[in-house]
Amino acid sequence: MTQFNRILITGAAGRLGSELRKGLAPLAKHIRISDRVEIGDVQPNEEAVVCELGDYDAVMALTKDVDAIVHFGGAPLEVDFETILDSNIRGSYHIYEGARKNGVKRVIYASSVHAIGYHEVEAHIDADSPVRPDSLYGVSKNFVESLSRLYWDKFGIESLCLRIFSSFPEPADRRMLWSWLSFSDCVRYVEQGLTAPRVGHTIGFGISNNRLKVVDDSKAGHIGYRPKDNTEHFRDAMEAKTDIPDPNAPGVRFLGGWFCELGHPDDEGK
Amino acid sequence: MTQFNRILITGAAGRLGSELRKGLAPLAKHIRISDRVEIGDVQPNEEAVVCELGDYDAVMALTKDVDAIVHFGGAPLEVDFETILDSNIRGSYHIYEGARKNGVKRVIYASSVHAIGYHEVEAHIDADSPVRPDSLYGVSKNFVESLSRLYWDKFGIESLCLRIFSSFPEPADRRMLWSWLSFSDCVRYVEQGLTAPRVGHTIGFGISNNRLKVVDDSKAGHIGYRPKDNTEHFRDAMEAKTDIPDPNAPGVRFLGGWFCELGHPDDEGK
Amino acid sequence: MTQFNRILITGAAGRLGSELRKGLAPLAKHIRISDRVEIGDVQPNEEAVVCELGDYDAVMALTKDVDAIVHFGGAPLEVDFETILDSNIRGSYHIYEGARKNGVKRVIYASSVHAIGYHEVEAHIDADSPVRPDSLYGVSKNFVESLSRLYWDKFGIESLCLRIFSSFPEPADRRMLWSWLSFSDCVRYVEQGLTAPRVGHTIGFGISNNRLKVVDDSKAGHIGYRPKDNTEHFRDAMEAKTDIPDPNAPGVRFLGGWFCELGHPDDEGK
Amino acid sequence: MTQFNRILITGAAGRLGSELRKGLAPLAKHIRISDRVEIGDVQPNEEAVVCELGDYDAVMALTKDVDAIVHFGGAPLEVDFETILDSNIRGSYHIYEGARKNGVKRVIYASSVHAIGYHEVEAHIDADSPVRPDSLYGVSKNFVESLSRLYWDKFGIESLCLRIFSSFPEPADRRMLWSWLSFSDCVRYVEQGLTAPRVGHTIGFGISNNRLKVVDDSKAGHIGYRPKDNTEHFRDAMEAKTDIPDPNAPGVRFLGGWFCELGHPDDEGK
Amino acid sequence: MTQFNRILITGAAGRLGSELRKGLAPLAKHIRISDRVEIGDVQPNEEAVVCELGDYDAVMALTKDVDAIVHFGGAPLEVDFETILDSNIRGSYHIYEGARKNGVKRVIYASSVHAIGYHEVEAHIDADSPVRPDSLYGVSKNFVESLSRLYWDKFGIESLCLRIFSSFPEPADRRMLWSWLSFSDCVRYVEQGLTAPRVGHTIGFGISNNRLKVVDDSKAGHIGYRPKDNTEHFRDAMEAKTDIPDPNAPGVRFLGGWFCELGHPDDEGK
Amino acid sequence: MTQFNRILITGAAGRLGSELRKGLAPLAKHIRISDRVEIGDVQPNEEAVVCELGDYDAVMALTKDVDAIVHFGGAPLEVDFETILDSNIRGSYHIYEGARKNGVKRVIYASSVHAIGYHEVEAHIDADSPVRPDSLYGVSKNFVESLSRLYWDKFGIESLCLRIFSSFPEPADRRMLWSWLSFSDCVRYVEQGLTAPRVGHTIGFGISNNRLKVVDDSKAGHIGYRPKDNTEHFRDAMEAKTDIPDPNAPGVRFLGGWFCELGHPDDEGK
Repeated sequence: MTQFNRILITGAAGRLGSELRKGLAPLAKHIRISDRVEIGDVQPNEEAVVCELGDYDAVMALTKDVDAIVHFGGAPLEVDFETILDSNIRGSYHIYEGARKNGVKRVIYASSVHAIGYHEVEAHIDADSPVRPDSLYGVSKNFVESLSRLYWDKFGIESLCLRIFSSFPEPADRRMLWSWLSFSDCVRYVEQGLTAPRVGHTIGFGISNNRLKVVDDSKAGHIGYRPKDNTEHFRDAMEAKTDIPDPNAPGVRFLGGWFCELGHPDDEGK
Repeated sequence: MTQFNRILITGAAGRLGSELRKGLAPLAKHIRISDRVEIGDVQPNEEAVVCELGDYDAVMALTKDVDAIVHFGGAPLEVDFETILDSNIRGSYHIYEGARKNGVKRVIYASSVHAIGYHEVEAHIDADSPVRPDSLYGVSKNFVESLSRLYWDKFGIESLCLRIFSSFPEPADRRMLWSWLSFSDCVRYVEQGLTAPRVGHTIGFGISNNRLKVVDDSKAGHIGYRPKDNTEHFRDAMEAKTDIPDPNAPGVRFLGGWFCELGHPDDEGK
Repeated sequence: MTQFNRILITGAAGRLGSELRKGLAPLAKHIRISDRVEIGDVQPNEEAVVCELGDYDAVMALTKDVDAIVHFGGAPLEVDFETILDSNIRGSYHIYEGARKNGVKRVIYASSVHAIGYHEVEAHIDADSPVRPDSLYGVSKNFVESLSRLYWDKFGIESLCLRIFSSFPEPADRRMLWSWLSFSDCVRYVEQGLTAPRVGHTIGFGISNNRLKVVDDSKAGHIGYRPKDNTEHFRDAMEAKTDIPDPNAPGVRFLGGWFCELGHPDDEGK
Repeated sequence: MTQFNRILITGAAGRLGSELRKGLAPLAKHIRISDRVEIGDVQPNEEAVVCELGDYDAVMALTKDVDAIVHFGGAPLEVDFETILDSNIRGSYHIYEGARKNGVKRVIYASSVHAIGYHEVEAHIDADSPVRPDSLYGVSKNFVESLSRLYWDKFGIESLCLRIFSSFPEPADRRMLWSWLSFSDCVRYVEQGLTAPRVGHTIGFGISNNRLKVVDDSKAGHIGYRPKDNTEHFRDAMEAKTDIPDPNAPGVRFLGGWFCELGHPDDEGK
Repeated sequence: MTQFNRILITGAAGRLGSELRKGLAPLAKHIRISDRVEIGDVQPNEEAVVCELGDYDAVMALTKDVDAIVHFGGAPLEVDFETILDSNIRGSYHIYEGARKNGVKRVIYASSVHAIGYHEVEAHIDADSPVRPDSLYGVSKNFVESLSRLYWDKFGIESLCLRIFSSFPEPADRRMLWSWLSFSDCVRYVEQGLTAPRVGHTIGFGISNNRLKVVDDSKAGHIGYRPKDNTEHFRDAMEAKTDIPDPNAPGVRFLGGWFCELGHPDDEGK
Repeated sequence: MTQFNRILITGAAGRLGSELRKGLAPLAKHIRISDRVEIGDVQPNEEAVVCELGDYDAVMALTKDVDAIVHFGGAPLEVDFETILDSNIRGSYHIYEGARKNGVKRVIYASSVHAIGYHEVEAHIDADSPVRPDSLYGVSKNFVESLSRLYWDKFGIESLCLRIFSSFPEPADRRMLWSWLSFSDCVRYVEQGLTAPRVGHTIGFGISNNRLKVVDDSKAGHIGYRPKDNTEHFRDAMEAKTDIPDPNAPGVRFLGGWFCELGHPDDEGK
């Protein structure tokens, strides 16, 4: 179903961006792909743009003539505040302003488990639970979740804020046995967000169909995400090569994992 | 399992009534079928009765010697108030009075999504959410839900109020991709309601196992309904022949669909 | 503050109607008062109309040129179904149709504790709790609560559904020590409903500031009702002349009091 | 995965204890099995100990050098208070003291549906619902649930309190069509409790994947229990040989089944 | 209002028992007062009984011919388990058995904040929040709360479980500025529990009208407790003589105060 | 009670800052007052500092040697994004970094109703309701609420985020009859935040004791704010000089008032 004429994917050179380029291709005639670095292997259906999200004029141009935005750009983990401020906060503001000024009606935003990383795994939170970021990175995710709420309530732009848990080729530690989001499931959730009849402002939890269920995604049921993957076939190997975890270690206790064990980025290396 | 001696089905000439006649046949030795119009193709196990539900004496007779009532009669969509008053309100009162006077202990009532049609699809309501009817028709469904609650609390008659979403041979528009209830699933839910060990007063959401999940039916888990059908095989054709919906159109935004776009029946044709 | 040009009060010959005529006089230049019986002692600011609410044309005329409706008419307690159907159900429908056709923007409706009479006193329900009527009378209150919800969602007419507990000159039994609503507090709540900046569709619990608190009215906080009366000065006399209640008697156990001990009106006198 | 050096199973001679001995064998090099009676057929990997849980010193010795405790010992149904006091209350206290003094970090405790037996089946309670025991036996389960909460909050010992519904070779009555926990599913839940990365203090509902769903186990989703069995293949036979239940009988109405119909154990035989 | 012929007060020699003897005198012709030690200054309306609550026969005699029981006996703080088992657990069981066998219909039980002591002060729990005891003493309070729930659901004996926070002549530390229950307010709450029309099984929070509000007692609103005292007149002196607290100290962070800082009673003195 | 050696007040030249300088004077020996503009009328107990919050080094110096921070600085209403980014987002980050680096343990932050401005007045939200900002200004408030949550969970710095509704000398429009926070009550709330035994991370609603109650502040009960003022003495004058509001106007319907009617700041003047 080529539902869209043109989709924009930001952060297209990143780990997930590369998957989305392939996975979303059937949905649109054209895919505009952007990143702050050169993107390799550009396909015939793709328009590659090098763009700093902190550059207002560049983002206004980038978001022109697109029907939907898959916003996965910005710093992907904990870094110093000024980088987060420019890439994630100002950059995302530019994306939403681009959407508003250019008439784009829907945005799929890569939020993160780190927006709610300090909730305990046994708290079984859902999309309406209060935020508890575990890092400056997580705070920037809350910022965009709030910003996109405003752009829906005031300007009628829909957003799916997809809180991605652990999206890697395969689980990299024991925690990911429950927190893993396969690349295919990630693409699947974004695709549902793009095609669902009504998104409004929705917060979803991006996680595969793993055995342990630590969050409740039912409030995004109108998006229609149905995960197909799970981590059971990785379990034995992972448990064989890693120690039994201490249930009180912050990285085990809290949703955010090792982000909860990080100090402040200013203190790194001290 | 021929659990019952005689079941009464009202509205038996209607779209769903016809399905119920076949589907529920194994449950009872006799099925009394009634409608305001002549019912065709009466089977040996069936007793056909033409009956206006607004006629008290007729309904008292109709409900005699039955073990359970499947009450699907009444006006099936928005019409003028006096018709609703007579068919749905007075008529359903007669059914419950018949049950009370004749010792019938359980009723399965065809309530409707239109009893809660003004909730937004992203609200993910459950059976305890406040009512928000989208039509006079929906108000009459709330009336019977309230009446049946009284008949349980005061007179010990159990009811399953089954809020039917969109029960048609196949989905007729994009909204039904999430709201469709297959005929088999409809029969399945009614059958569970008739045979569950305890119904008390239960409100259920009649919807198939469609990809998008917009309401939470878990409070009817003691009924044991497990849908078997879904709309995925209709999706491509439906999406090919219909436009992408405007998420802000009332018919997309609210559970009740196009009923929310109807004016008052008195104003029709003006 | 003469905020309104003309208010309509239905049921104006009734116990509460008489209080409202006096209490609301300062709010409007004209008060149209109606009842099915002749109303005595008509004041210069009043326009008295004898009107059956079941008469469509009469109600259309009655609701003309009014700015707000205080709808206290209809059968005030459990009676046979046809009376309830005509007075409370059809009659209230006419009132709302009159409001719609004549451009009246706000209605204060005398709902009742009997709309939720089968909740236990220790359940501490609030305005969003499911309905549990204790009588046909209570079912008719649920009908109007549902109808008024529709008229707000679809036609933009605001309603305060005021669930009146026990509004009498003074408490008439031990239960009223907690359920009593003084006449002044009743007028106060209606007045707030008429003048609050936004009512939308609100359900309020009409009860004075009595010592025992069995329901939670906080969801009507935007109406601004602050009760001034309470039953403490009646307590000693009431306790002296009545027996200690059995906590398991339905009239003590449930919000609805003795209505929960009534049988069906058809069985009365048998 | 031989994750543990030594697990202790109490009540190992009981119906479920026997299943656990086999089912948990792969998890530990050694399994210490204890009961108040001699245990038959001791395997090479097992250390059998006859032990009264009411004997403090014996339990201190019993819990030494173990890595986890599967505490299924104690009186398994309603008996006189002094037996419950000694076996279930004092006995379980000894188990937790043994864990504390011997450094055992995790306990799987056989709680019971009878801890919440007086909730109605249509209440759909979850792990945070208030307790409503249906027997002195059930009260003792609440005691241990409370005690284990203290031992987590204050002493850092994790507990899974597994509320076992009806764990028998096969369903023994109609109620068990919804309440049955197969032996394999029981072992499965305990195994998940032993190996989940973080248990903290968790209450789980031990029930197979039966058609009717009367409780909500989602708050134990971090344990990762996924039932594999259900009762559908027993349904026809059971329904054929037992009467249709009265939905108002306490044994049908309440979660606890026939325990709700028991009198006080002191009155038995009178 | 001499509503009762005879009330029994256990723990009548204790701090609160002495207050209750005076405060409840107007409610009953006779007050039976019991304690494990001799009670001084026996009044003409009082019947003093020395009684170990662990002695079954003595308690059966003690509870004879009484109309209501105010059960404040048992160990009043953290002690070794066997003392708690005998005084608080077995002793309270005897009280409830006495009530059942002797036809006493209502019990006011001195539960404690320590039944929920490990909740954080900012959690704002209410009566339905899960228990989190902070001590063996607190566990025994949960035991009686569970036991009394059974005696209501199964045997129809009403209980008010009054979770007393800090009832002393005056606040003894900074925490008591919010947790203090004046003696008069304590008597007031018990009196309301004895005279309220329906108690069923109610959990109340015994705390005066102090400035800081850390728990929500609204679910006991049907009891009608209205505190009259508060700690503001003690504030300046208390703040002058005590240090500013560390908000992370367990005694500040948790409802239970210094009980959360206690170790296990077996470890005391080590 | 001179509880603190030195408090820092930012935004001290602003409307509320001036009130806080006076009101908080008794709490501290020294008050450091800062603003981006010169502050007039400096008192002997005050240390005035001109400081741009966007200047990292300046804020590090500003926050040195203080015991608590009352952070009321930053842009006080809707302005262009870059101003908000610098003053409110970067500036508040600097304040929290200053607190962290200089060992300040508690911050009182001037959040705003505009953090939740798009909730309807009849929604009766509390502190845990999802955010719904009504402006870029509101989004910046959500940012700081999220940031301060991180600084509590990870770095142990307490924050009271005080969502100020309408704090002016007197109500300026009809909406403020319910939303007004008197200057005295504002100071009172801040004072409570500074002196409460435990703040953790608390969100409070800053509003006086006005007749209409549209939000639920009970989750901040451990702060101990008790408003003393209300708007009733302004009501008549205000109602006389302003029109009756349209309940559907965004400024009446939503908590945020006229902020909900603002367009985007970039579009102003167009």
